[in-house]
Amino acid sequence: MERTQEYEHVEYGLSEEKQDLKFALAQIDTCVGDLEGNGNKVLDYTRRAAQEGAHVVVFPEMTLTGYPIEDLAFRATFRAAAWDKANALAKQISDEGLGELFVVVGTVGTDHEQDLPRNRMVVLHKAQVWAAYDKHFLPNYGVFDEFRIFSPGQRSVVLNIRGQRIGVTICEDIWQDGGPVQELLSRNIDLLLTINGSPYEEGKGHTRIELAQRRAQEVAAPLLYVNQVGGQDDLIFDGGSFVTSREGQLLHCSPQFVEDVSFWTLPANGTEEHTRLSASKVRPPQLPSDEAAYQACVLGLKDYMSKNHFRGVCLGLSGGIDSALVATMAADACGGENVLGISMPSMFSSDGSKDDAADLAQRIGAQYVVEPIEHLFEAFQQQLHLEGVAAENLQARIRGVIVMAYSNAKGFLALATGNKSELACGYSTIYGDAVGGYAPIKDLLKTRVWQLSRWRNAQAKAVGEREPIPLSSITKAPSAELREGQKDSDSLPDYALLDQVLDAYIEKAHGRADLLADGFDVGTIDTVMNLVDRAEWKRRQYPIGPKVTALAFGRDRRLPITNVFAE
Amino acid sequence: MERTQEYEHVEYGLSEEKQDLKFALAQIDTCVGDLEGNGNKVLDYTRRAAQEGAHVVVFPEMTLTGYPIEDLAFRATFRAAAWDKANALAKQISDEGLGELFVVVGTVGTDHEQDLPRNRMVVLHKAQVWAAYDKHFLPNYGVFDEFRIFSPGQRSVVLNIRGQRIGVTICEDIWQDGGPVQELLSRNIDLLLTINGSPYEEGKGHTRIELAQRRAQEVAAPLLYVNQVGGQDDLIFDGGSFVTSREGQLLHCSPQFVEDVSFWTLPANGTEEHTRLSASKVRPPQLPSDEAAYQACVLGLKDYMSKNHFRGVCLGLSGGIDSALVATMAADACGGENVLGISMPSMFSSDGSKDDAADLAQRIGAQYVVEPIEHLFEAFQQQLHLEGVAAENLQARIRGVIVMAYSNAKGFLALATGNKSELACGYSTIYGDAVGGYAPIKDLLKTRVWQLSRWRNAQAKAVGEREPIPLSSITKAPSAELREGQKDSDSLPDYALLDQVLDAYIEKAHGRADLLADGFDVGTIDTVMNLVDRAEWKRRQYPIGPKVTALAFGRDRRLPITNVFAE
Repeated sequence: MERTQEYEHVEYGLSEEKQDLKFALAQIDTCVGDLEGNGNKVLDYTRRAAQEGAHVVVFPEMTLTGYPIEDLAFRATFRAAAWDKANALAKQISDEGLGELFVVVGTVGTDHEQDLPRNRMVVLHKAQVWAAYDKHFLPNYGVFDEFRIFSPGQRSVVLNIRGQRIGVTICEDIWQDGGPVQELLSRNIDLLLTINGSPYEEGKGHTRIELAQRRAQEVAAPLLYVNQVGGQDDLIFDGGSFVTSREGQLLHCSPQFVEDVSFWTLPANGTEEHTRLSASKVRPPQLPSDEAAYQACVLGLKDYMSKNHFRGVCLGLSGGIDSALVATMAADACGGENVLGISMPSMFSSDGSKDDAADLAQRIGAQYVVEPIEHLFEAFQQQLHLEGVAAENLQARIRGVIVMAYSNAKGFLALATGNKSELACGYSTIYGDAVGGYAPIKDLLKTRVWQLSRWRNAQAKAVGEREPIPLSSITKAPSAELREGQKDSDSLPDYALLDQVLDAYIEKAHGRADLLADGFDVGTIDTVMNLVDRAEWKRRQYPIGPKVTALAFGRDRRLPITNVFAE
Repeated sequence: MERTQEYEHVEYGLSEEKQDLKFALAQIDTCVGDLEGNGNKVLDYTRRAAQEGAHVVVFPEMTLTGYPIEDLAFRATFRAAAWDKANALAKQISDEGLGELFVVVGTVGTDHEQDLPRNRMVVLHKAQVWAAYDKHFLPNYGVFDEFRIFSPGQRSVVLNIRGQRIGVTICEDIWQDGGPVQELLSRNIDLLLTINGSPYEEGKGHTRIELAQRRAQEVAAPLLYVNQVGGQDDLIFDGGSFVTSREGQLLHCSPQFVEDVSFWTLPANGTEEHTRLSASKVRPPQLPSDEAAYQACVLGLKDYMSKNHFRGVCLGLSGGIDSALVATMAADACGGENVLGISMPSMFSSDGSKDDAADLAQRIGAQYVVEPIEHLFEAFQQQLHLEGVAAENLQARIRGVIVMAYSNAKGFLALATGNKSELACGYSTIYGDAVGGYAPIKDLLKTRVWQLSRWRNAQAKAVGEREPIPLSSITKAPSAELREGQKDSDSLPDYALLDQVLDAYIEKAHGRADLLADGFDVGTIDTVMNLVDRAEWKRRQYPIGPKVTALAFGRDRRLPITNVFAE
């Protein structure tokens, strides 16, 4: 797949006198594979946009197919169905009398020369697919695998609408130098439009806006950025669509973590004055860090449940902070009455732990059952006579069997409550406490778990509600309670230190020499590296838990989770 | 990452009079991350090559680092350590008086301009790294993720050794048109040398040789192809190195599935006569299909065990064909005495099943224990009162707990016995019979499981040994025995038909319309598509089992399994 530098430039529409052009920024939550559902949502938001007098309505990257579609792109019948859906939708919109609108949606296309999929933008107008643009730069790092899947587009595209010249791009196209943005420099455009599927990553929001501001200045035109919102498998898209002026000032912002349609008008007579007037009112769409991370976790779980048709969840409640935070997030995602907390005390469970579990369930309004495991443990032990770690694991695995029994019997999604620190260090039991179909806090280090727990309690207090998480779950020393007097600190460095080393070793890919240069002591470095390498090795041997990646909300798969790819 | 077409050409060594050039083809089995171990193996094979009077010894792709190294490539300290190892090795070889040899090894390099990893070949000679070439074409399809990891080399390289001009490439470089092979067309080379990490895939062997024959004709020079051998995580490399003449005739072949060093001489005075003489004796290195698949499974398991330091395995023996074949493969991999078979009969287990399990263990010389599960099942049921599928899953999960208890207590690798047909259709219990760290037959459809079982028995008979697999395990109707009278055929289409549909749907990515055109009836298509989609969905929800991919020996991960990446 050698790439050529030969670009073709294509103009759609006719040159005419410039008029005001009203855009609807429709940041919607799509589901991978669900052409029917996604198409209906496009229709719904198009109607709303029409009611507000918009001329152009802009949806996120790969709207019709959902994003990311991974290897589903290789199924020719799915690509054909997506093409049919785009045409049917154009006709349907026209049949409703809205054919004059320009509806910008993402979908999958086919590069017929190579019979390979393309990441495509189409513009629906007057009952047909009026224009098309294919993504040029295909990200293949971190959570992205697009070079694996798509062939790159080689055309730059300008849409002429109401006398305004709109250059178009898809997501990564604006993140790399050269390519379509470079091509559009000489095309005298009035606006750079980009549709995106840009996942939430802590701290990335500012980067995204700063980049857009720089590109707007480069092309000397405002930039309109529409982003997807919602959870898809273990990626979470945060929305936060926006417009910047040609001088790089923020003109408009959509909210984060919710579906939204809002409007912005590209004026007929330049944007200078407009910019100065509105810029002072607009703030970046970034929520404070704790709130954003919490909302991301809740939205991810909520969408995972709805897209996979789960109405409820079940999880073990130990009285510790991890299960308390997960249960609270679950109650926020689907209502406490749809959360089933299972207390599974053993001979090593303290009274405090049992009380805290019951207290938590009561505070969040969860269903609550107690299933003691001591006599089950004894039944196994009469036969197996296990000792040491094998005996500790047995307790955790009996609990795993019970959680899955409730999951099967009630059709609830089982939640794993592991945090990133313990997953990274292998401080959990495979097929035991690691059991679960979704792990809401797998990307949060332990210190972050405490921070978000305190934030959630403070937020409840601020609005006059009862704090959901018992204070003692936050303040007590963490323990797995698999043997008498066991504490996490017997096996792991202090979490404040551990999390710093994990951040350097995992996120920053620092090796041993780098970590020494970072100032960590040699004993801690060797302990943590051994723990993480061994855990990685164990996780590979028993690939059951969430994978620890170098990204805040990373993932490790090839095909989407969905039950709607009937084609 | 825009690619440029600007190639640089580099020549190493001086022009001199042509002499015979003797090559050693060293197809070795490396371990990812194990710079020390891999380096020692290179030294060992270099000594052997020197004893035979070789001038050049050629090792596979990424010899020093192992292959594939996945995201480990991003660790700068690891790349530095690999560079140090290459230099140390060159010095060590020279210190032993072997400095005149040209030792061609693969390793990881760094593109200092972009600070990105490179897939590199280096030639060690006279105590230093004498020459270097970086892979240009980076495969990023199927099991390959190289575009994600490496930046592409932009230099074509010719090595001048004893008057012979050797053009070099790495693996994918010869699979795509253009690139380095194109550049070498005008360089008047005497040999095209390629080092490879080409995984075993059923039927691919011929493709590989045919391609090499075509390339040899294109460049009008013989082609020497050295491939890696051995299992790495869930990829299996089959070796089968070879040489073709400039006319495309096979001149030399190394065996499949074993480490090997063999020799071939590029004569001073053309290869015409040499070709005619030797071609008639040489056969393609492909073993018959059943034998190759069986050997691949055994080698994969054997290397997975040795590279992760397991001496033994444990698995549940049900009396069925899947566990019988897995146990037989395990006995072939590590000796029957290191295999622990666990019979876990319930109230639904037939006498025949129990007898077959014991018979199998006895035939392969395995350790054998019986752990009845009925009273454990009753202990859970007194508390949980499960019905239907939840009660069936409970039996499988109790067995999973027991297998893991033996794994933990004895330090044995737990083996999952699922085949590709049942994994694809979700006909197994998550955290139950799917428990295990390695799944030796996850890539074999059920009909293939029967074929390989019959092949293995026939092979034993042919050499006068007792057939390892009881005939009744092969001939009886498959059953999960989780309720009275249960048969696989209650839930699944006949395996002969099912496997055909699975092949079309999974390997060929045929959609519904394609499957109808294939001639399958609509009822079967809908049943199988629903089963597979639902199983895929379940597997995503509970990501524990091996993933079903569209490749014979596919995989689904980002980092290698290993415990030796200390840098």
